Order: sequence, then structure tokens, then C-alpha cells
Amino acid sequence: MRILVVGASGTIGANIVKQLESKHDIIRAGRNGADVSVDIMSPDSIASMYETTGHVDAVINASGGANFRTVSELTPAWNEKGIESKLKGQLNLVLIGQDYMRDGGSFTLTTGVMMDDPIPMGASAAMANGGVRAFVKAASIEMPRGIRINSVSPNIAEESWDRLGNYFPGFTPVPAAKVARAYVKSVEGAQTGQNYDVYQ
Amino acid sequence: MRILVVGASGTIGANIVKQLESKHDIIRAGRNGADVSVDIMSPDSIASMYETTGHVDAVINASGGANFRTVSELTPAWNEKGIESKLKGQLNLVLIGQDYMRDGGSFTLTTGVMMDDPIPMGASAAMANGGVRAFVKAASIEMPRGIRINSVSPNIAEESWDRLGNYFPGFTPVPAAKVARAYVKSVEGAQTGQNYDVYQ
Ligand SMILES: NC(=O)c1ccc[n+]([C@@H]2O[C@H](COP(=O)([O-])OP(=O)(O)OC[C@H]3O[C@@H](n4cnc5c(N)ncnc54)[C@H](OP(=O)(O)O)[C@@H]3O)[C@@H](O)[C@H]2O)c1
Ligand SMILES: NC(=O)c1ccc[n+]([C@@H]2O[C@H](COP(=O)([O-])OP(=O)(O)OC[C@H]3O[C@@H](n4cnc5c(N)ncnc54)[C@H](OP(=O)(O)O)[C@@H]3O)[C@@H](O)[C@H]2O)c1
Repeated sequence: MRILVVGASGTIGANIVKQLESKHDIIRAGRNGADVSVDIMSPDSIASMYETTGHVDAVINASGGANFRTVSELTPAWNEKGIESKLKGQLNLVLIGQDYMRDGGSFTLTTGVMMDDPIPMGASAAMANGGVRAFVKAASIEMPRGIRINSVSPNIAEESWDRLGNYFPGFTPVPAAKVARAYVKSVEGAQTGQNYDVYQ
Repeated sequence: MRILVVGASGTIGANIVKQLESKHDIIRAGRNGADVSVDIMSPDSIASMYETTGHVDAVINASGGANFRTVSELTPAWNEKGIESKLKGQLNLVLIGQDYMRDGGSFTLTTGVMMDDPIPMGASAAMANGGVRAFVKAASIEMPRGIRINSVSPNIAEESWDRLGNYFPGFTPVPAAKVARAYVKSVEGAQTGQNYDVYQ
């Protein structure tokens, strides 16, 4: 399969690539993507990425962010990153990308544990995660031409613990390689409308 | 209590007002609100509504929309109404309104059944609903000064069946009066971080 991985250089993305590259043709994307560059916050940038790649059999997104702020500090403006990046950025990869997706292909997006097991300062990211999960479930019932769509909800990764562990008191991190296997299941399997939790 | 109801003139809002008005002081809001006008799609309009109302003990939102489109027809632009109205409109009522909320007060937002039981053309609304539910759950753990936050997820209302029933094949509608009781539970009860399903 020809698989576009957005966020291929990241902690999770690199592990996804590692598990797929021996069997598939991988196109690595990101703002400084090795094969094609894209900023998911810009619909124009997404459109030009797909013009460059042409048709693909799968799109995986392992990028997207949101600001960490307490609710008291979370203004509408601080909430915009979660809206534009983690939420709309991911949806737009699907909405714009569906014309470039081969029959029976798949989209796999990324949510995250804090929508189910909330942490302080995580409300904006949780919003984006919950929006993506509900979109995936609803969109799956009417994707055209047998196209599937799923999301993966990682717990905090062991590899991210030094950088982010302070935000996740009492969480038990999971190996990014284990998280990556859920993306393999989405791409090589046949399920649709699922949000794969990798919490343990 | 002094309770601000946004969308007070609507199918669900009118039923909420009916159940609260004998015991509480109700402020009716909407674009053509009987007491104060607001367009939840505009943060400036939300801010000026709160300047007009001053402090309140509860905010209930029963407004907000999204476009109905199949995924194939759902462009980033068609998705914007769900983002700006049902998702950001509701969050901004909280983010901007928290400074006007009395200690121990409550916010109650509105989601909807299609995030859990998807219907054709419902992906954009489902996204907004899922985003609101996850925000409510995450925000609830750190709302300041004992402020609570919940959402209500109505099934299609009997009163909306003539207008919307075609979108909900095989659904069994529920009375709007029953939906309204979940908002009463949120306001007069003591729970927080809940999404009350009124599906049956
Ligand atoms: N790591 C965790 O523990 C964890 C847990 C739960 C959820 N997640 C979610 O998983 C996803 C990936 O996390 P990660 O930790 O692997 O991230 P990461 O290590 O920071 O890597 C991010 C990747 O995305 C790319 N990227 C960043 N912004 C982009 C943009 N605007 N447009 C396109 N590409 C962009 C980066 O490459 P460039 O710099 O070249 O753009 C990089 O390849 C995120 O959505 C994150 O919220 C992660
Ligand atoms: N009815 C159902 O079966 C059902 C089922 C599930 C979920 N819901 C959700 O419940 C909520 C209310 O539904 P409904 O059927 O009661 O709606 P409705 O009858 O159409 O009434 C909408 C109310 O919201 C106000 N409104 C509309 N746009 C607004 C805006 N931009 N800013 C501020 N106020 C606005 C309207 O007053 P003005 O015209 O004066 O602005 C009116 O009071 C919606 O979020 C809907 O998605 C409804």
C-alpha cells in the first residue's frame, strides 16, 4: 500500500513508520516532512500536499496539538490551537483527502487519553480529542467507496514521559511501539468507526 | 437562583424555562431573546450579553447548530457552522461566562444523540457534540470556586419530529419535557462533569 503518514518524524509517527515501512510504500509528511511538507492548520497546505502525493491507500495522522491551560486561564483565543490543529487539522485531512483516497482505503486519526481520564490543563485538548472521536464514528457510516476511518487514543508514551510526565500524575505510560500497533490494526485490518484505546 | 437560558424560545429551551420559572428568576436569551440578545457565534456578543446580565447562578445553553451534509459533500467550509456555533459557541459561553458565575453555580450545555447513534449527514454535528462532551468532562475537574459543568444529550424530540424526523429513521422520539428535566437535574442537583443522555 501507498501510505501517507503526517507527523512521521514524531515520537508516535516514527514508531508507526518503523512498523509499516518493510511492507508498504511510506510517504513522510510534516511541516518539515522528509517527503512532502504540510501544515495541517492550513487547508490550502493540505490541498497542495495531496496534489503532490496523488492517490494513496491510507492516510495516518500523528500530528496536531492544543494549548495546555487551566479552565480559568483558557480564553477563546487560547482554545484556538486545539480547534485549528488537533480538531480541524485532522478533519480537514479527511475532508480534503477523500478525493485522493483509493477505493477501500483508510484514514487513521489521533485522539488521546485525556478525553477519558482528564488531567488539569487538558480541557482544550480533550475537546479536540472528543470531537475527532465522534466525527470518526459518525463519518464511518457514510464514507464513500468502502473507505474506512478510525482513530487511535494513546495514553502518555514512555518516550514522552521526561517531557510530559509532569502533566500526567499517576499515569502509567505505554511504549510508543505498542501505540503504533493500533495504527497498523486500523490500516491493515478491516474495521471502521473505531477509536482504539491504547491505555495499558 | 438567577438562571440565564440561551435559546429560551426554542423547542427545548421553552420546556426548560417552563420547568424552572416558578422557582427561579429566568433571563431569556437568544438572537431575538426576550430579555437579552446574543449570538453565540460571536465572542463579542457573548461578552456584551454577560455585561448586561451581570452575575448569575446558572447558565443553560439550548442553542447551537451545525450543517447537515454527507461526508462526501462536507467541505471544510460547510463544517464551520458546527465549529463556530455548536462547539465554540457553547465553550465560549463557559470561557467568557466563568467570571460572571457565582460561587457554586453551574453551566449546562447541549450535545445530542447523533454522537452515540450516528445518522447520515450527521458527522459535523456529531463532532461538535463529542467536543462539548469531552470538554465538559475535562473542565469539570478544575472549574474554580465550586462551579459545576454538565451537558445534556437529547434524543430527537417528539416536538421536532415533523421537522427533523426524516433525518432520524427508526428513532423513537422523546418528549421535550423529559429532556428538560435533565437540565433541571444539572442546575438544582450537585453533580458535575456529567453528560446526561435522554435517549429513551
Ligand atoms: N506522545 C504522547 O505521549 C501522546 C499521547 C497521547 C496523544 N498524543 C498525540 O499524538 C500525536 C503525536 O504526538 P507525538 O508526541 O508523537 O508528537 P511529536 O513527537 O511532537 O511529533 C509531532 C509530529 O507532527 C509534526 N507536526 C507538528 N505540527 C504539525 C503541523 N501543524 N502540521 C503537520 N505536521 C505537524 C511534526 O513534524 P514537523 O515539526 O516537521 O511538523 C512531528 O512529525 C499528537 O496529536 C499528540 O497529541 C501523543
Ligand atoms: N430538538 C431536538 O430534537 C434536538 C435533539 C438533539 C439535540 N438538540 C439540540 O438542542 C439545541 C436546541 O434545539 P431546539 O430544537 O430546541 O432548537 P430550536 O427550536 O431551533 O431553537 C433554537 C433556540 O436557540 C436560539 N438560537 C439560535 N441560534 C442562536 C445563536 N446563534 N445564538 C443564540 N441563540 C440562538 C433561538 O432563538 P433566536 O432565533 O432568537 O436566536 C431559539 O431560542 C440545539 O443545540 C440542538 O442541536 C435538539
